[in-house]
Amino acid sequence: MKRRTFLSGAALAGASTALAAPAISQERRQMTIVSAYPRDFPGIGISVQRLVQRIGEISDGKIATEYYAAGERVGAFDVLDEVASGNSQAYCASEYYFTGKHPAYAYFTVVPFGMTTTEANAWIKFGGGQELWDELAGEFGIKSILCSNTGTQAGGWFNKEINSADDLKGLKMRIAGLGGQVMTKLGASTVVLPGGQIYENLVSGTIDAAEWIGPYNDYFMKFYEAAKYYYTAGMHEPNASACLGMNASWWGSLSEWEKNVIRAACLEENANSYEETQSNNGVYLKKLVDEHGVQVRDFNDDTWDAFGDAAAEVFEEVRNHSDIAARIDDSYQSYLRQIGGFMDKFEYTFVRQRNRVLGLT
Amino acid sequence: MKRRTFLSGAALAGASTALAAPAISQERRQMTIVSAYPRDFPGIGISVQRLVQRIGEISDGKIATEYYAAGERVGAFDVLDEVASGNSQAYCASEYYFTGKHPAYAYFTVVPFGMTTTEANAWIKFGGGQELWDELAGEFGIKSILCSNTGTQAGGWFNKEINSADDLKGLKMRIAGLGGQVMTKLGASTVVLPGGQIYENLVSGTIDAAEWIGPYNDYFMKFYEAAKYYYTAGMHEPNASACLGMNASWWGSLSEWEKNVIRAACLEENANSYEETQSNNGVYLKKLVDEHGVQVRDFNDDTWDAFGDAAAEVFEEVRNHSDIAARIDDSYQSYLRQIGGFMDKFEYTFVRQRNRVLGLT
Repeated sequence: MKRRTFLSGAALAGASTALAAPAISQERRQMTIVSAYPRDFPGIGISVQRLVQRIGEISDGKIATEYYAAGERVGAFDVLDEVASGNSQAYCASEYYFTGKHPAYAYFTVVPFGMTTTEANAWIKFGGGQELWDELAGEFGIKSILCSNTGTQAGGWFNKEINSADDLKGLKMRIAGLGGQVMTKLGASTVVLPGGQIYENLVSGTIDAAEWIGPYNDYFMKFYEAAKYYYTAGMHEPNASACLGMNASWWGSLSEWEKNVIRAACLEENANSYEETQSNNGVYLKKLVDEHGVQVRDFNDDTWDAFGDAAAEVFEEVRNHSDIAARIDDSYQSYLRQIGGFMDKFEYTFVRQRNRVLGLT
Repeated sequence: MKRRTFLSGAALAGASTALAAPAISQERRQMTIVSAYPRDFPGIGISVQRLVQRIGEISDGKIATEYYAAGERVGAFDVLDEVASGNSQAYCASEYYFTGKHPAYAYFTVVPFGMTTTEANAWIKFGGGQELWDELAGEFGIKSILCSNTGTQAGGWFNKEINSADDLKGLKMRIAGLGGQVMTKLGASTVVLPGGQIYENLVSGTIDAAEWIGPYNDYFMKFYEAAKYYYTAGMHEPNASACLGMNASWWGSLSEWEKNVIRAACLEENANSYEETQSNNGVYLKKLVDEHGVQVRDFNDDTWDAFGDAAAEVFEEVRNHSDIAARIDDSYQSYLRQIGGFMDKFEYTFVRQRNRVLGLT
C-alpha cells in the first residue's frame, strides 16, 4: 500500500491546477493526510474529513489537501510511521494508538480517571500540555495539534451485567489506551482493534465486550446485535482527543500564515466535534433503547472504587518508564486536581443544582 | 464620540499600505470593531482583542481590523446601534446587554437555569439556535457569531451572607440579563452597569452586591474591598457567551473565504476563552482567599429552589412578549432538557465518580 506519492502527489497538483490557474498553483502547498478512521464514518470519521475540507477553505485553496481514510493508503495504526517517514505530511488519529512506541502517548488522547474535554483542552493550551506533547512527539519527528473530540466515552458494550469488579475477570474486551491496562489488572484480557474490526470480533465471540465511543458513534457499529448491556460513563475515557499529527520538518517549513490557518481549522473542529457529539448522543441513546432494546446500565460505586485502585497502579508503571513519562504524569495529575477541584465549585455545582431543580436526571 | 470613520478608516488603510504594497492594499477589507469591554481588561477584554488580531492573522492581513474598546468610539451599550447604522462593521458584546431592544436577546448570552458552555454552543451550532439568532438579530440588521465564553459565572459579591431567599429582599444588586429579573421577583432591586462602573458603585454603597464573571476576571475588579462574601455557581449564568455582531449588509457583501476566516477565528477564540478562564479561575479563587480574606460560600438548596420558582415566572413573561420570543424559549428549553439529561448520564456521572474517588471536592 505504501507508495512514495509525495512526489507524484505534487506532480498531480501541478498538472490539475495548470489547467485552471497556473499562477496560483506555484503558491500551493501540498498536504497529504492519512487517517486512522474509516471513510465517511459517522462522528469521528466525518469530523476529520470536515477538518481537511476546512484547511482548504480557510487557506482559500492555498493548502491543497489530499485525504486517505484508514486502509486506503496505509493501515489505521501505521499512520504515524507514514508521516514520520515524510511520505505523507499529516495523520489524523488518537495518540493512544501509539502507546506501543511510548506509553506517555496515552495522556494526549485521555487516561483513566483523567480530565474531561474542557479540562484536557485547557491543560494542552494553557497548562503546559502542548510543550510536553511537542517534546514527546518530537522524539518521533512529529508535531501534533488537537483537532477533534468525542467527549466522555461510554463504559462499553458487555454481553453480561457487571455488578462488581469480579465480573470483569476472564472477560475478553476491546479497549484502547491505559484503560485497557486497568481492565487487565482487574483480570480481563484486553485487545486494541481499529474501529473497522470490532463488530466482527464481537459477533463471532472472539471478544465479550468492547468500548468504542458513545451512543452516536456506537449506534452505527451495531454492537447491540452481540452485546445488550451498554454502560454509561466509563472510567477509561472522560474525553477522547484526536489530533492532526504532522511531519515536524514539514511543519517547520510552513509560513506563519500557513501555521495559523492549520491551527485555527484544528481548534475550530476540536470544539465543533465535541459539541456535535454531545448534541447527537442523547438522540442516539434513545434510539438504541427504543429501536434495539439496549439495556443501559451505570457502573456501581464498588466497581468505580476498584477501577480507581487499579488506575493508580497503572500510572505508577507508566511513570517508571522514563523521565519524560514521569514529567507528563506530574503535569497532568496536578493540573487535573487544580482545574477539576475548581470546576466542582462552579460548573459542576451549577449542573447538580439545575438538574436537581429541573429534575434532569 | 461618533464619527463617520468608515470612510476615513478606509482612506487611512489605503495610505498606510500604499507605502508598502499597493497591489495588495486594493484587496483589503476594512473592518472597524467596537467593543462593550474595557481595553486590555483581563479575561473578556483580552479575549476579544485576541480575536481581532486572529482575524488579521488568519486572513493574512487581507481583513484589516481596527478595534475600539468601550468608550473609545461609542459607549459600551451603544455598540449595537453603532453597527446597525453601518458606522462600524462589527461589535464585541454580550447580547443580553440588548434585552431593552428585545427580551429574547438574553438567550444568546445565557439565561437562568440555562445551558452550560458546551450545551449552549451545541444548541447554537447543531440545535437550531443560530437560525433563531439570525432571525432575531436580523430584525436589527445584525448577523452575530459566538466568539468568547467565560463559563459558569460566580453567584456574585455580597456585603452579607445569603442564607435564604429572604436575605435578598431589599438588596441593591448589579446583575445583567434575565437573572436580574429573577432577583427582582425575590425582592431585590437590580441595575445593569457596564464592567467599568461596578467598582465605584459597590464601594460607595450605591449597590450592596454585584455579579461580574468569575474568580479570574473578578480578581482584577477589587470588589473584595467592598463585599467579602463571594458566592460560587450562580443560577443566573451557567455560561456567558460573547459574540461578534456584524452589520448584516456588510456580512452579506463578504466573499465565502472572508466569511470562513471570520467564522474560524470566532470559533477558535470561543473555545480558547472558555478553557483559559477555567484554567485561571482556580488559581485566582485561591488568591482571593489567601491574599484578600474573601469568604467563599455556596447558595443552599432552599435558595436554589426559590431561584427556580422565580425563573419559571420570568420565562413565562418573556414568552408572552412575542411569537419569536416564545419560539426561542421553546427551542432553548427543550434542547436543554435533552442535552442536559444526556450529559448527566455520561460526563457529569464521570465527574461525580472521579471527584468522589479522587477526593476532588
